[in-house]
Amino acid sequence: MSTENIKTGPEQSIGGIPQLSLDCVIFGFHDSSLKVLLLKWKDIGEWSLPGGYIKQTESVDDAAIRVLKERTALDKIFLRQFYTFGKVKRYDNELIKKKLAHLVSDHIWLDRVVSVGYYALVDYEKVFPTPDRFTESCDWVDLDDVPELLFDHNEILTKALKALRLELSFQPIGLNLLPDKFTMPDMLRMYEAILDKKIDPRNFQKKILKTGIVIRLPEVKKGVAHKSPYLYKFDKKRYTEVLEEGGLFFV
Amino acid sequence: MSTENIKTGPEQSIGGIPQLSLDCVIFGFHDSSLKVLLLKWKDIGEWSLPGGYIKQTESVDDAAIRVLKERTALDKIFLRQFYTFGKVKRYDNELIKKKLAHLVSDHIWLDRVVSVGYYALVDYEKVFPTPDRFTESCDWVDLDDVPELLFDHNEILTKALKALRLELSFQPIGLNLLPDKFTMPDMLRMYEAILDKKIDPRNFQKKILKTGIVIRLPEVKKGVAHKSPYLYKFDKKRYTEVLEEGGLFFV
Repeated sequence: MSTENIKTGPEQSIGGIPQLSLDCVIFGFHDSSLKVLLLKWKDIGEWSLPGGYIKQTESVDDAAIRVLKERTALDKIFLRQFYTFGKVKRYDNELIKKKLAHLVSDHIWLDRVVSVGYYALVDYEKVFPTPDRFTESCDWVDLDDVPELLFDHNEILTKALKALRLELSFQPIGLNLLPDKFTMPDMLRMYEAILDKKIDPRNFQKKILKTGIVIRLPEVKKGVAHKSPYLYKFDKKRYTEVLEEGGLFFV
Repeated sequence: MSTENIKTGPEQSIGGIPQLSLDCVIFGFHDSSLKVLLLKWKDIGEWSLPGGYIKQTESVDDAAIRVLKERTALDKIFLRQFYTFGKVKRYDNELIKKKLAHLVSDHIWLDRVVSVGYYALVDYEKVFPTPDRFTESCDWVDLDDVPELLFDHNEILTKALKALRLELSFQPIGLNLLPDKFTMPDMLRMYEAILDKKIDPRNFQKKILKTGIVIRLPEVKKGVAHKSPYLYKFDKKRYTEVLEEGGLFFV
């Protein structure tokens, strides 16, 4: 994948909206495990979230889609604006200036910048992680192994994770993450991985079935030890309906 | 109440963050009814949501608290950032310029402005609605009677209402809105007024009790026809806990 046309970072502030940026927390899910996509900066070896500036000619949402595509080569994915970080002093600007002076000349990070936070949830096997011009690599990192990040990015990550878990607790999730046909234990493991807690399987199954977002197929999963579990697929119409209405609690 | 020190609107862009503003959707709840606080502009008689610019010396959240206090005289209330409106062309800037030219000379509204949306939910009997310098009145308007608003404020209102209803479907609500002691029918009516739909009372009671956010008191409500309903109060510890955890669905 070519990185020639990739332009994220402070150079975009030329012609971009001043004092406004966005940051993307890209969660990757695969095989019962949750990771986050991080950028490793050239020379200094420190890490940050992907992000960028907003062009005057694009909406903030479109800017997030662009950054996400540049870093993952994916489009049309689950992307949510979750919070706008607007503290007067989000991080130690002087420290950041010192750390990044060799890479960036215009010291944009010395200004106060308000950042719109987005999170995405992707199947990380489908992603081609791509660094930007300030960074040497773009890697998946286990949530438990996330180091101290530049700027206020640990705080942004924490808040994104909270927002994702909250969303999971009231909205259907799993389309594009689970295979077309899946078992109830597959779905349960997805919820457990993201929520990072054990869920009672019987109660879970009862609640999910009640929402109507899944349809039981007349087939069972083969080659599984013990009892063969039923296969399910999403009822896309009902799934979208519940997404629109937004509430699982009052279903 | 003095309005002397009230400074909201475009004049705050002097020294404020350029191209960034905030808008507040203030919902008022009282006696099973939901309203929204609107400002009526001088001379032109058109309406908008309250809003303002963000000073370089205040966080975006603090700016929202300030605007809210200026318009309602309330502080320490339920206030949520729900979405940042970032379209390139949020409204017809030329039309707005024409409409507001007699009030505002610097045509700030001709620029592209990104706006951080907040909503608040207050007991409207406790509010002192206060117009700003561009507006002649500040009034509660029934949701069904909201006129065409200036800027993209109808869209912001619609999205805020959706966010409020969503929040209601997964987070506890009612503290500061219901009296200290309330009946299950009181609580049900609050949910029904905000969600604008009928909810099955038995299912509702079962679900609410299961969350543990309310405690049944050893008293009943007097002076009610038919069977006297039990009184409840919020278990504030559990209420906060569920708010923190964020999910009613997996309780």
